[in-house]
Amino acid sequence: MQAIASTQQLSPHERLTRLRQELQRQGLDGFLVPRADEHQGEYIPPASARLAWLTGFTGSAGAAVVLQDHAAVFVDGRYTLQAKAEVDMGLYGHRHLIDEPPHQWLPGHVKRGQRLGYDAWLHTTHDVRTLRTALEPVGVSLVAVAHNPIDAVWSDRPPAPDTAVQIHPVKYAGQASSDKRKALAEALVKEHLEAAIITSPDSVAWLLNVRATDVPHTPLPLSFAILHGNGQVDWFIEPARLSDEVRRHVGSEVHVHPPSALLPSLDKLQGRRVRYDPAVSADMLRSRLEEVKAVVVEGPDPCFLPKACKNPVELEGARTAHRRDGAALCRFLAWVDRQGAGVGEIAASDKLEAFRRELPELLDLSFDTISGAGSNGAIVHYRSSPATERKITEGELYLVDSGAQYADGTTDVTRTVAVGTAPPAAAEHFTLVLQGHIALALTRFRQGISGHQLDAIARLPLWARGLDYDHGTGHGVGSYLGVHEGPQRIAKQPNNIALQAGMIVSNEPGYYATGQYGIRIENLVVVVPVETPGGEHRMLGFETLTLAPIDRRLVVKGMLSAAELVWLNDYHQRVWEIISPWVDPQTRDWLRQATQPI
Amino acid sequence: MQAIASTQQLSPHERLTRLRQELQRQGLDGFLVPRADEHQGEYIPPASARLAWLTGFTGSAGAAVVLQDHAAVFVDGRYTLQAKAEVDMGLYGHRHLIDEPPHQWLPGHVKRGQRLGYDAWLHTTHDVRTLRTALEPVGVSLVAVAHNPIDAVWSDRPPAPDTAVQIHPVKYAGQASSDKRKALAEALVKEHLEAAIITSPDSVAWLLNVRATDVPHTPLPLSFAILHGNGQVDWFIEPARLSDEVRRHVGSEVHVHPPSALLPSLDKLQGRRVRYDPAVSADMLRSRLEEVKAVVVEGPDPCFLPKACKNPVELEGARTAHRRDGAALCRFLAWVDRQGAGVGEIAASDKLEAFRRELPELLDLSFDTISGAGSNGAIVHYRSSPATERKITEGELYLVDSGAQYADGTTDVTRTVAVGTAPPAAAEHFTLVLQGHIALALTRFRQGISGHQLDAIARLPLWARGLDYDHGTGHGVGSYLGVHEGPQRIAKQPNNIALQAGMIVSNEPGYYATGQYGIRIENLVVVVPVETPGGEHRMLGFETLTLAPIDRRLVVKGMLSAAELVWLNDYHQRVWEIISPWVDPQTRDWLRQATQPI
Repeated sequence: MQAIASTQQLSPHERLTRLRQELQRQGLDGFLVPRADEHQGEYIPPASARLAWLTGFTGSAGAAVVLQDHAAVFVDGRYTLQAKAEVDMGLYGHRHLIDEPPHQWLPGHVKRGQRLGYDAWLHTTHDVRTLRTALEPVGVSLVAVAHNPIDAVWSDRPPAPDTAVQIHPVKYAGQASSDKRKALAEALVKEHLEAAIITSPDSVAWLLNVRATDVPHTPLPLSFAILHGNGQVDWFIEPARLSDEVRRHVGSEVHVHPPSALLPSLDKLQGRRVRYDPAVSADMLRSRLEEVKAVVVEGPDPCFLPKACKNPVELEGARTAHRRDGAALCRFLAWVDRQGAGVGEIAASDKLEAFRRELPELLDLSFDTISGAGSNGAIVHYRSSPATERKITEGELYLVDSGAQYADGTTDVTRTVAVGTAPPAAAEHFTLVLQGHIALALTRFRQGISGHQLDAIARLPLWARGLDYDHGTGHGVGSYLGVHEGPQRIAKQPNNIALQAGMIVSNEPGYYATGQYGIRIENLVVVVPVETPGGEHRMLGFETLTLAPIDRRLVVKGMLSAAELVWLNDYHQRVWEIISPWVDPQTRDWLRQATQPI
Repeated sequence: MQAIASTQQLSPHERLTRLRQELQRQGLDGFLVPRADEHQGEYIPPASARLAWLTGFTGSAGAAVVLQDHAAVFVDGRYTLQAKAEVDMGLYGHRHLIDEPPHQWLPGHVKRGQRLGYDAWLHTTHDVRTLRTALEPVGVSLVAVAHNPIDAVWSDRPPAPDTAVQIHPVKYAGQASSDKRKALAEALVKEHLEAAIITSPDSVAWLLNVRATDVPHTPLPLSFAILHGNGQVDWFIEPARLSDEVRRHVGSEVHVHPPSALLPSLDKLQGRRVRYDPAVSADMLRSRLEEVKAVVVEGPDPCFLPKACKNPVELEGARTAHRRDGAALCRFLAWVDRQGAGVGEIAASDKLEAFRRELPELLDLSFDTISGAGSNGAIVHYRSSPATERKITEGELYLVDSGAQYADGTTDVTRTVAVGTAPPAAAEHFTLVLQGHIALALTRFRQGISGHQLDAIARLPLWARGLDYDHGTGHGVGSYLGVHEGPQRIAKQPNNIALQAGMIVSNEPGYYATGQYGIRIENLVVVVPVETPGGEHRMLGFETLTLAPIDRRLVVKGMLSAAELVWLNDYHQRVWEIISPWVDPQTRDWLRQATQPI
């Protein structure tokens, strides 16, 4: 047999044509192409980059719909420009992923009786239901394909990642995998459940205390698991990826199977009550479970909450990681101040990475650094490239959002600094953002309150002026896992997960003056019990983990209340006390000045 | 035939025994008795007071479960004492309706294979699903009864209410019923819907611009309707209740049928796409719709949002009603101050009602007045009775929560006043509550924000001290309709309804020192667009409708920020300007002093 030719040289037009031919072969009038893999994670491996292969679009969120006479790419506001640069607009219409997602666009672009294909491995059950609800009234059937038609024409699709699985030792994890499995199994049984399907790879990594480097920045192996009511686990991962040591680490209660064994294993759940998370799991699994007449009990992945509530060992690790990371960031901020104007965004983020790389504990960055000078700082998810890069310029702001992965913790911090004299309105906007940040940091709240209920607190000072920021106030953060981790968040989007002691979240209000500057002040905070003498309820509050000065030169003192001033000066005092022993004398001199009370 | 004997003389024990016999006859092992009628409204007519007939419990929320060897009554915290007084504890166990509702209690008290009956007219589809999910794992079937077994033994059950239907004229409603029907029908068609089932009687009353007095305090006829995509309405109400004038008012597009025609009418929806609200509608209707193979499209009652967003005529009416009602309340508050200590709670609320009854426009109170002296004020839903009544006493607080129904608007206001020198901590607690009230009143927020997201703002000052209140911060209010009206609310309970211009909500934080005093400061506010010069977004804020002094003697001035002081003094200035022309000279003297700046 002759080797199949590479598709590398195919033009986007040829790729689209071949896909349409394949759709015809499969009897389909169209196909949905999400930017997703089987695990719905933030980072996907090259093997799953079907959207990029087809359309050229490489952003971290998006979708395409291919009909026979029409195709569209859907991206959100942060990727509008990038999509225009990457995607051939002669082939694809451009739509807004949030304002007009595929399920809203489709009913106006399909015809009654048509068959629209989708790959049930790449859409959650919630997604499929939303699509079905939208398409049913217009008489279009949604058809799960047996074979992804892109894979049929993408002959040189890369293999799945197979990086070596590593042990995440108890000295960092704080709890043995066997204890986690036992506790979760008991909770399942209490809910009359016999098994749970775990499809989020960070849940599997947390449950088994393992890590790997299958995708950038989030140290996990892409794998599935079934947790049983007896505490045993079926783990679906290429067995060759596990050393004997890892085998011993997971032990005899964890049965390792190749990924191809997952679907057949579901057949054994016939008649069993099985926990299944429709919000994050590939609909393929629900469909198979129902086929074999398992009793599908929908509910959240049982790892989500215990993973989110860090144990004392993880919290101690987080504090250590933040001291270490804060020292590196302070060296960088001092360096930025010394350099003054003239440094390029990429040179700056390289320098920050270099400071972090001097730390022997550094394992990875936790995401690609956002290094935005002047107007680039106003682009919320900006990523410098030689084409877009600006130099840090006198009289402008510089925004840097970065983080790192250490075995004892994951960091994520944003600072905005003035270079020379800031634009007139910038200090006022900076102070409004700081007031929101402080208000949230000082909030005490009852058990049972969600981040959704606290989000407004960080926005009130901006809202009072008719201003706002178009992103969440805070996201959960993993422990040497994803820098974005659920289930809690502090955001406008509905979320009923109560903030609980041990949860780490970011506190990151911002303000963005398009074409001028961006402001964001981000600390990670951990939910802690707080004492309220004379109070009647056990209250929760936030302990700030991140340690780096907030640019005093941008603070309008007269706008701050007494309580806000106390918070800022106390915070800077703490930064000085904890960080100063860990930095070079030059940085220490800078830090002393940067943490003076105002 | 001999007349069936009255059940009036039956003891609770005999009633329970007869019900159990009837259950056996129907082949049931148990039965659920909710405190609900077919419409799930706040007030139910005597014909639907099955829980009270069976158990003696007359509270406004509760349930009973009757098994053959066991029975329990479920009430929430505010009714614990009342249930103990009213319900024979030898017959019924007492459970907490919120902490351990029937669906959580049942699995531990039923046996595999048992059949538990319920009346599908009295439970929403959501309720039934919750019950089913709880009972399915323990192997108990939930059986919709063909005939309510209580009705079988309650031989002298009162007839359904049949008060005369009245026209709610456009000069108050602000929009003709035909225009409302047309707009809603167009919205249905846009959603590919052919009809909507309207089961909330206040929705029907709003849609048809009619009122009646079937239940206390909420001026509506208990009725169902089907709205069709062509704007026509099938209205299910005893035809004899409509005068010729009302017939002409509703017009030829509204087809009047007796209530018994409702179920047969659903049969005509076979194959049609029908909007059905599972959160508020009797599951009987869903079940019939599915039987006849209608396509049930679940979603909110289409009247809810337009009813909640008051039109300019309704808002002008609300302002007038609040001026009128505020004048009556001020007369009362001045009277309370003149009386000083010694007045009883019931005499006080009678006096308040008398002041309101002097207004020719008064049509009803909007709920039973809460008049709580001293420790009784700490009982959130307190209702004075000769047995519990206290006298207003020197050195205590007095809390009065009351409201009225006028054709142009519905009011609801709470004031807490000091009699003599208040208890030492009371002023501090009052000021914390006031700070929460002011913070919410001053909040500006983006389009799309729900009351759930703003609730915390009113609690922050209390939370900072480890204190809280165990009720919502705000509920929606109707326009000469229910004093509690959805779908919006400001509360801890999840609610994703955006606050929109024209919505009326209460702003009523509180604090309750059990055994000592209760504090609540409640104004009604309306959501309005606000100008933010230099801002980037169209913001919303609150205009306060309620006009009555907040007791300055309880305000600790030193705790208030400059902005809070300005709000309080401006509010009092406004109360003085608007109310003073409408009260007698004696009240005016009092008002001048009560609205002085602090």
